Amino acid sequence: MVSQVKLYDTTLRDGTQGEGISLSVDDKLKIAQKLDHLGVKYIEGGWPGSNPKDMNFFEEAKNLSFHSAVITAFGSTRKPGVEAENDPNLQRILESGVEAAAIFGKAWDFHVEKALQTSLDENISMIYDSIRFLKEKGMEVIFDAEHFFDGYKHNQDYALKALTAAEEAGADCLVLCDTNGGSLPSEIADILKVVHARTTISTGIHCHNDGELAVANTLEAVKAGADHVQGTINGYGERCGNANLISIIPNLQMKMGIPCLKEEKLPQLTETAVYVHELANQTPPDSQPFTGKSAFAHKGGMHVSAVLKHPETYEHIEPEKIGNERRVLVSELSGQSNLMFKAEELGIPLDKTDPAVKEIMEKMKQMEHQGYQYEAAEASFELLIRNGLGENHDYFYLDHFKIIAEKENEGAISTEALVKMDIQGEKVMTAAEGNGPVNALDYALRKTIGEYYPLVHEMYLSDYKVRVLDEAEATASTVRVLIESSDGKETWSTIGVSGNIVEASWQALVDSIRFYFMKHADRLQKLESQPVHPGPGLQNH
Amino acid sequence: MVSQVKLYDTTLRDGTQGEGISLSVDDKLKIAQKLDHLGVKYIEGGWPGSNPKDMNFFEEAKNLSFHSAVITAFGSTRKPGVEAENDPNLQRILESGVEAAAIFGKAWDFHVEKALQTSLDENISMIYDSIRFLKEKGMEVIFDAEHFFDGYKHNQDYALKALTAAEEAGADCLVLCDTNGGSLPSEIADILKVVHARTTISTGIHCHNDGELAVANTLEAVKAGADHVQGTINGYGERCGNANLISIIPNLQMKMGIPCLKEEKLPQLTETAVYVHELANQTPPDSQPFTGKSAFAHKGGMHVSAVLKHPETYEHIEPEKIGNERRVLVSELSGQSNLMFKAEELGIPLDKTDPAVKEIMEKMKQMEHQGYQYEAAEASFELLIRNGLGENHDYFYLDHFKIIAEKENEGAISTEALVKMDIQGEKVMTAAEGNGPVNALDYALRKTIGEYYPLVHEMYLSDYKVRVLDEAEATASTVRVLIESSDGKETWSTIGVSGNIVEASWQALVDSIRFYFMKHADRLQKLESQPVHPGPGLQNH
Repeated sequence: MVSQVKLYDTTLRDGTQGEGISLSVDDKLKIAQKLDHLGVKYIEGGWPGSNPKDMNFFEEAKNLSFHSAVITAFGSTRKPGVEAENDPNLQRILESGVEAAAIFGKAWDFHVEKALQTSLDENISMIYDSIRFLKEKGMEVIFDAEHFFDGYKHNQDYALKALTAAEEAGADCLVLCDTNGGSLPSEIADILKVVHARTTISTGIHCHNDGELAVANTLEAVKAGADHVQGTINGYGERCGNANLISIIPNLQMKMGIPCLKEEKLPQLTETAVYVHELANQTPPDSQPFTGKSAFAHKGGMHVSAVLKHPETYEHIEPEKIGNERRVLVSELSGQSNLMFKAEELGIPLDKTDPAVKEIMEKMKQMEHQGYQYEAAEASFELLIRNGLGENHDYFYLDHFKIIAEKENEGAISTEALVKMDIQGEKVMTAAEGNGPVNALDYALRKTIGEYYPLVHEMYLSDYKVRVLDEAEATASTVRVLIESSDGKETWSTIGVSGNIVEASWQALVDSIRFYFMKHADRLQKLESQPVHPGPGLQNH
Repeated sequence: MVSQVKLYDTTLRDGTQGEGISLSVDDKLKIAQKLDHLGVKYIEGGWPGSNPKDMNFFEEAKNLSFHSAVITAFGSTRKPGVEAENDPNLQRILESGVEAAAIFGKAWDFHVEKALQTSLDENISMIYDSIRFLKEKGMEVIFDAEHFFDGYKHNQDYALKALTAAEEAGADCLVLCDTNGGSLPSEIADILKVVHARTTISTGIHCHNDGELAVANTLEAVKAGADHVQGTINGYGERCGNANLISIIPNLQMKMGIPCLKEEKLPQLTETAVYVHELANQTPPDSQPFTGKSAFAHKGGMHVSAVLKHPETYEHIEPEKIGNERRVLVSELSGQSNLMFKAEELGIPLDKTDPAVKEIMEKMKQMEHQGYQYEAAEASFELLIRNGLGENHDYFYLDHFKIIAEKENEGAISTEALVKMDIQGEKVMTAAEGNGPVNALDYALRKTIGEYYPLVHEMYLSDYKVRVLDEAEATASTVRVLIESSDGKETWSTIGVSGNIVEASWQALVDSIRFYFMKHADRLQKLESQPVHPGPGLQNH
């Protein structure tokens, strides 16, 4: 069994081939430093021979110092009929200044003849010459055998011949690529075992997730002797993605006892995954294994009390070990223990025997039956509890509002709202425009409240989700609105449900402001300003 | 090796335990019918003993007829110290009217003592009694052995004892659950092999994706002898989700030669996955294996011609086999072939050399860049093409509309719209109320047009979906509205995109009516009626 694994990250190259993933050179440099900090051995920075933007990364990378990571360049074998020393692609690799390169070559005869349109022998020479050339320049060379598993299944001898050529040329590692992503774990294991037995040098694995098996395939390869693992952070990549290093690392290190990072670095895993998501402008999936927000989120009444007492019996690993944390969700499925736990988390001591608590739970179930989903709206939930306990956090009341949306001919639509509030006995009124009825109402509400309590200007809407609950009713359905608000430091979520989208949005908006005021009641001050005195004006007109 | 596998879907129960997944009873019934149509054997409709909403599903399900699916109820073993016939949970299962039930019981001694807080013997009796009770009522009973793999690793004898009790009580299948989701494929294989050898009845598997190994674990279990596979559509579920049936099915059937659906049903896989995503209000991930939009999307460049000629060398399966399609990401190429293909499908002969066709494609690309998605709105697409060819299907024009939403104090919100149209040179105007700005506009628009063209009353809105395109902009984002209309015989879809939801809805509504009028132009007649002459009235006031 392999005693330790070297990680090879191709987020910056293969990862960016995924639809919707675009990284600037600056993003790539930041990610490279993050991965170096984590302890990834090889960081494939790009394909310098393919475009100048990729070369740019290598130029900039020369100005940074890495602790232990080896910045690697990706490139193809020399072109058919061209000498290695004259091949522009190989020249770019030298110019990039890297110490290591991953050269990919064809291992499937069909591809050689149809895609490359050259002879089987020439392809073998291309592999040999390219690797020999770079080795003579003193570089470390990894050979990525493209379509290896499919190639092996179709013409075993030829596939192995490609590897032999690479090894004889001095390659430091033979990486078998499941380029189409469709191999089964047993096929990976069988074939890699054969290859491993025939070579003295390092073998590696590069899988794709077309069968939702990339992680499993990678683990099988390591079991069969591979000590070099290629993948991307968060599984980015073409089609269904590359093998996800974030899932591979804890499986290898914590479940299989095969280290790939220094032990003290493991807790950086979650933060690394999130950091890369942020730079790649991706929303981290809540359900992402190991590092997702929901990976250790427990729902459902029966489990909760047990989880809280003995988490190890409900969790396959301790979340803290990879830098994540446990969460307990409140929902209609939950019993009283969920509610008590949540209230405690919120710092509101609840007495189980207090009849008010039973009422709060009844109210909660009732609301949830109408469509409220409190696990997604903790601020509304807290207000529900506190109101149920008799506290008052209203601060302002609606006198009335009016929203007007108008469109003339083919002209642009105009949407305006006027809002009149009763704030501590005073009437405050203003108007605003927006690009939708809710947007206009949102702006007008804040503007109005802001004329009394400027504190409202420190918060803003950061996310707005609408969910139609019973679509069969078409435009006349029940609507659930979830709002996320922020003050730049913290975020909180509120909810509104109604047959009317404006009403539902209104509820969520009002809750979001009331919650913020409640949390910062110490800073809630009336605006000092000159009162506006309208002149005598045109009376009774 | 297992010759065929029975699929057991728990999307409606375990799937809904995922954060953010909430299905109405109506959604669940639709999904159940969809899965029945696909050929899923067991459909777990819910846990009737846990809450009334779940029982509601079973009541409604009695009114539907299923071709082959067996609607199944989930439930716990009887409570400690309570007789099976007096256990309310088991009673609910009987009341639900199902023919099959999945009873879950503890197989890990630790959980029995700490979570259930009862004796090891009592737990065994609970398993035995509950299953025996339901079997005597003539039901099919599946035993879900909770935390089986962890339980087996900690106390092998006790875990096996739990299974023996279930088998002796008459259980029809023993399902081993990797409840914490952290087992490795080899562990699943080894343990299931042991269990399978010790029993004559069916064995099954239920995995979770906490290690990103749920699919692989499930396949290993089948290899080891399990012929009953539990999972959810699209892998929904708590934490990191349940084993994804959408990935399991093609792996079993197409790669391992173990059928689970009728061959002719396989092409329904993609549509089923997307349908469930829509009902669950989830955005289908482009990178989802097998069914994702990007699953067979190839980047262009050197490979394009090779791919188009020999797709099997770049694809692990043929996309059509599971109802997906190949995409080649070379923008002009894919754009034009899509357009020509679609136009042909619609029976509109397009001449590739016609400059109008190039303009239509430019317009289409422009619109798609703004967020229009024509594959989901074929009626809008057809109007786009026909307008591009110079045809006119307008029938009516907007003079102006005004929507007013008002709310006073805690009163109900009122939403009214007035619409004035120019129809064949005549001004027509009326007003309507609704329960939202768009609903009011919709009613007023139809009412107004209907005063000229009564044909509009034969169509109605059957579905209305809003998707916010760039949620980071909160209430000021771009919104895509998809409308499905029907006249009772046919349905058609239209789209609108705008920063303003009313504008987006307006576009989709107008398209829906224009399309209907175009298709039924022969029946489009002006309403014969007495003109309304207002009296002299109070002039110039």
